[in-house]
Parts: sequence; structure tokens; C-alpha cells
Amino acid sequence: MTVTFSIIKEDTQTRARAGVLHTLRGDVETPVFMPVGTQATVKTMTPREVWDLGGRLILSNTYHLYLRPGSGLVREAGGLHRFMGWPGPILTDSGGFQVFSLGPLRRIEEDGVWFRSHLDGSEHFFSPEKAMAVQEDLGSDIAMAFDQCAPYPCSYEEAREAVERTSRWALRCREAKRRSDQALFGIIQGGVHRDLREKSVRDLVAIGFPGYGIGGLSVGEPKDIMYRVLDFTVPLLPVDRPRYLMGVGSPDCLLEGVDRGVDMFDCVLPTRIARNGTVFTHRGKLVVRNAQYARDFSPLDPQCDCYACRHFTRAYIRHLIKANEVLGIRLTTLHNLHFILSLMGRIRRAILEGRFARFKEEFLARWGGE
Amino acid sequence: MTVTFSIIKEDTQTRARAGVLHTLRGDVETPVFMPVGTQATVKTMTPREVWDLGGRLILSNTYHLYLRPGSGLVREAGGLHRFMGWPGPILTDSGGFQVFSLGPLRRIEEDGVWFRSHLDGSEHFFSPEKAMAVQEDLGSDIAMAFDQCAPYPCSYEEAREAVERTSRWALRCREAKRRSDQALFGIIQGGVHRDLREKSVRDLVAIGFPGYGIGGLSVGEPKDIMYRVLDFTVPLLPVDRPRYLMGVGSPDCLLEGVDRGVDMFDCVLPTRIARNGTVFTHRGKLVVRNAQYARDFSPLDPQCDCYACRHFTRAYIRHLIKANEVLGIRLTTLHNLHFILSLMGRIRRAILEGRFARFKEEFLARWGGE
Repeated sequence: MTVTFSIIKEDTQTRARAGVLHTLRGDVETPVFMPVGTQATVKTMTPREVWDLGGRLILSNTYHLYLRPGSGLVREAGGLHRFMGWPGPILTDSGGFQVFSLGPLRRIEEDGVWFRSHLDGSEHFFSPEKAMAVQEDLGSDIAMAFDQCAPYPCSYEEAREAVERTSRWALRCREAKRRSDQALFGIIQGGVHRDLREKSVRDLVAIGFPGYGIGGLSVGEPKDIMYRVLDFTVPLLPVDRPRYLMGVGSPDCLLEGVDRGVDMFDCVLPTRIARNGTVFTHRGKLVVRNAQYARDFSPLDPQCDCYACRHFTRAYIRHLIKANEVLGIRLTTLHNLHFILSLMGRIRRAILEGRFARFKEEFLARWGGE
Repeated sequence: MTVTFSIIKEDTQTRARAGVLHTLRGDVETPVFMPVGTQATVKTMTPREVWDLGGRLILSNTYHLYLRPGSGLVREAGGLHRFMGWPGPILTDSGGFQVFSLGPLRRIEEDGVWFRSHLDGSEHFFSPEKAMAVQEDLGSDIAMAFDQCAPYPCSYEEAREAVERTSRWALRCREAKRRSDQALFGIIQGGVHRDLREKSVRDLVAIGFPGYGIGGLSVGEPKDIMYRVLDFTVPLLPVDRPRYLMGVGSPDCLLEGVDRGVDMFDCVLPTRIARNGTVFTHRGKLVVRNAQYARDFSPLDPQCDCYACRHFTRAYIRHLIKANEVLGIRLTTLHNLHFILSLMGRIRRAILEGRFARFKEEFLARWGGE
């Protein structure tokens, strides 16, 4: 297999595990958070900066790159890694989540989804086969199967239909797959329903994938519902395959996900809130663009040793953001990614040293003091 | 004196000279180009990046910092160097050029200038004394005298009045100056008129400054007129003081300025055109956002060894700029500043090695092939 997974240590008090994802472009320690490079760039950052923060596996978006600059152009450039200068492995989503999010701009059929570009209104069609072809043009190390993501809330019937179609499409993706240097992960659907999650896992595992995405979560449901779904879904999945909780990236959700046996995460949250002037600190989130920080000459997070915190104050970063200076959102983005990536490193060490539950408890106690 | 100047080598074929500007925050080799950090940041760049490109002396804008975040706040932060994390010397302009550019938003009196903020319309008053006080709050290494910059074109009478007021204001700046760790440069006005430039130099040199700005150029006049004014103005200035041509930064103008005996330059051009998707190359300017570069997988400038050119293609950078990704303008800015700063280094070496005239000719021959 192109991508394999080794478990190094299983926690005894929780379902947490530390592992290694082996890819043709290097090993990735898990649990791992994947910074998101939607348009072939982790917003505001150079590849070198992401790498220096400890980012090893990034996610990029098939839908966005298909529309702009076009997956054919990326293929001509030698693939996404060469195009964007990223030295490590890349996971691409299937585009499914984006096209299903387009609302009135899309029409779902059994064969696939018609949709209109959010950029210019042009009409396009994505099917399992097309999603595979586009991801093969991009040349990611891990492709995701084209799935139907049911919204939250939705009826049982709607969730069931999404599960069944996702299973049929997963098989079509497997059959359409051509590249031997690209792994394909399946995606579990089923909303908040235990029996539907069970059916989805059964179908997907019967096809057999080297890793499984847990989809249809972090789509607007309360956190405790997400945790409950993870509680009954993760144990259904094969122990020896990586589990990827899609679209999750707040510190508390990362800890709760790891606690429930998740190995991989991605989310735009750290970089998106950074661009709105909000940063993570060990005591919770802080809106540095607020007036109260205008004369605060302390770092974003006094406990942080990132470049932004070693060299600049809240007052300066607030000034930059108020003045629409790019350096402001560069510093908040760098800080937030550092926060999340170093949190993942500390989580992994805690698992390896058999103290994950305590680490989680202590972190959340301070975090909640927000 | 706080800032002194040593001439290392004078060219024999031109008026070019290589020198060293000695400041309390370190020596600066001349001729020097000062990157502009209008709002306490060289747009898109960290201080470390500017430093690593060879930037040693930067310019910041009194008018902008006075309005936002306020010079009192910068003083509380420990001065501009600490506020923005810049380890080297800083030159601040006086705010004069900006308030005179405000057009209908300002009213000039002998005592100073009333103006309205471009940010919120609030009314403010700048005088020589105020400009000095604000610059002393900022704590720059070199302050500029508050001058009256006549527009181009303007009547002889208007130019004469600007010269006379600038001389009176220069004296007031000298008398208002308090900080012993800040040097004050005078500014020569006089438009395109030889006798007015002569009078301005006479007045300013009589007061006596450790350096002289040449103002009222690069304000819309044709380049050959600017060169002609330099031809007759620079020789009037004291040989042993640095000469600073304000607002000039295109490669050809830098070479022509150095040729005529100028030691210091500043300009937003390299960083501003970068944000519009235009870059310098050894064969002239290149608009990388143009469609013709969509599939051009070569670097911005094949002769360049900057980070952007070593790692990324025109196609990728064009994609980033079209997609409004910050990394795009980061890379074009970094490239353009590298181009100008390394050009200044090559100019200096050429002067030291007695081959400046040939270097200039060869550079401009290729540059003109644009």
C-alpha cells in the first residue's frame, strides 16, 4: 500500500493512540493536525514557515484548485507539490463537501453533482470518477473518496440516502483510481444515527481503504453530539487504519477527538480566526484587535515561544490589524498554527508517556479559564 | 554629532561616491536604499526578512504614525524601534510631504499646516515644532525638517515662497530639537529653478545640518528634468554630508542619482508595484499577473537568487495574486526589495572597484530591453 499506518502506543485510560503514517514523501507522526492550503497556499505562509512550525502533512482543496488555476495547469506544473513548493505529503479532499455546500448552485444526481462555480457562475459536473481524475492531476499523496455529506440537522431518511450514495460512490472511486502512488481514503457518513454510522462503516470497510475519514461532523451540530457520535463510531473502525476527523481544529475538539481514537484532523479555524484578529492562548481565545489591547505591550501568549510572541506585542499586532497591514495577519496566523501544531506534539508526547488523560484535563482547565 | 558620514571612495568618471553613514544603531553603507515602513511595517515583510535582504536603514512616516497608532503610544512602547522590532537605524520623514499632498483637506499658514486626517476627518495642526516633537516621540535616528514641498508644475513665485518658508521652518526645527540621540537633516527645495535651489542650499547650509534631503523632486516631473536639477543642485551641497534624494526608487533613477552624487534614497515603488503584481527583472519590469504567465513555469527573474525565485514559478505567483492570496504579494515584495537592495550593493562594489560608469551602462542597456 502507498500509505500505511503503524501504532506506536495505545493509551490505557482513553482510546488515544500515537502512531506513524508512512507515505512516499516521508513519515508523519500522529495524532496530526493538517494545516489547510485551500488555494495551494496555507494562507499568508510560505511552505518553509509551515514546515518550520512542524507542519508535515497539509490539506488542499480539490474544488478550489479545479476551478482556479485548474487541475490541468497543476499537472503541467509537475503536480501540486512542485507547483506550491511543499516538500512533504499532501492530502486532498474530494471536492464533495464544497459542492454540497453550494446550496442553490448545485443539483445532485446519482451519477454526480452539477454545480456552478462560486467564481464566475460557470457550470461544472463532479462525479466520483471526475473527483478521482482531478485529484490524480493534483497528484496528492492521499485522495479522499467523493462522498455525499448530509447537513445538520437533517431527517433520518436524508442521512440514510447520503450513507447509501456515499457507499456506492466510494466503490466507484476505488474502481476509477489509476495512480499507484496515491492512496485513497473512504469517508464514513451517517449523521448522528448509530445504525447509519454502523452501516456506513460496514460498507466502506467491505470495500477496504488504507484510512477512513469521519465525515458529516463539525457541520454545525453541538460539540457534545459530535463527541457522542465519535464515541460510537470510532470503535467500529479497523484498529490498524488511520481515522481522520474532517474539519475539526479547535484545541478542545482536538483533545476530545484524540481521546476518542482519532489520528488525523484538518481545519481552517486556526488560520481563519487569525485573519479576524483572534488568537489562541493557553488561557483561551483572545481577540487582539479589541481596543483593550491598544497599549498592551505583552506578547500574544506569554507562554508561547513562536516568532510572533518572541518579537512583538499585542499593541503592535493590534495596530497592524487595525491598519490592514499584512504583517498583522501573518503574525496571528503563524502564532495560531504554532499553537495547534505544538499542541499536537505535546499530545503525542503525553500519549507516549502514558499521561494523556492528565494532560488533557490540565490543558482544558486552563483553556476554559478563557 | 549623532550621525556622521565618511566617504570611502569617490568615482573619477562620475559624481558617484561610496561611503558609510555612522549611526548610534550601527553603520550603513552608502549609496543606500531605504525600504519604506509607512505604518511601522515594511508592507508584507517581517523585520527579519528586511534585514536578511540587506536592508539596514528604513524609513517610516511621521504623518501616518501620528494618526495611527499615535506617536504617544509609540513612545510608551519604548519608541518605534522596539514597537516594530527593527534592530537597525530608522529615518522618519517630517510629515510635510503627506500633509501638503492632502489638497483640499489642508490649510497652510506661516506657523504651520492645518489638515484633516484621511482616516476619520479629524482636524490636526502640524508645525515645525510639532513635527519635531512627534519625531522625538517616535525616536528615529534621523529626523527630517518640516518643509514646504511645492508641486510640479508650479509658478516661479510659488517655488520661491516654498524655498523661503522651508528655510524659516528649518531654523525653527533646529531650535525645537531636544533629543541628543536623534540627528536632524534639512531639506532643499527650489523646484526646477537653479537660482532657487542655490538659495535653498545657501540658507540650509548656513543653519548647518549633518545631512541634506533633496526635496521637491520625483513629484511628477519628467525624469530628464529631475536629472538636470540634480546636475546643478548636488554640487552645491557640502561634500562631507550625505545627500538624500527623497521618493526615488526605480532602478534607472537610482543609477542616475548615484551617478550625480546622491547617497540615500527611499521609495514605495518596489513594494507598491509588487502588490499590483509587477516585478523587477534584469530585463526590465514584468507584470506577472498577466495571462501570458499563467503556464510559465520559470522564476520571476532567471538571474535572481532570492527565496521567491529559488522556489516558485511565475505561474504559481500569478495564481496566488489572481486568487488574492497574501503569499503572492509577499513573494513579489520580497523579490522587488531583494532586486533593489542587491542592486545598491552591486552599485557600491562597482564604485569601490572604479567601474561604476560601465556597470551603469551595462545595467541600463539590459534594463531598457524591457
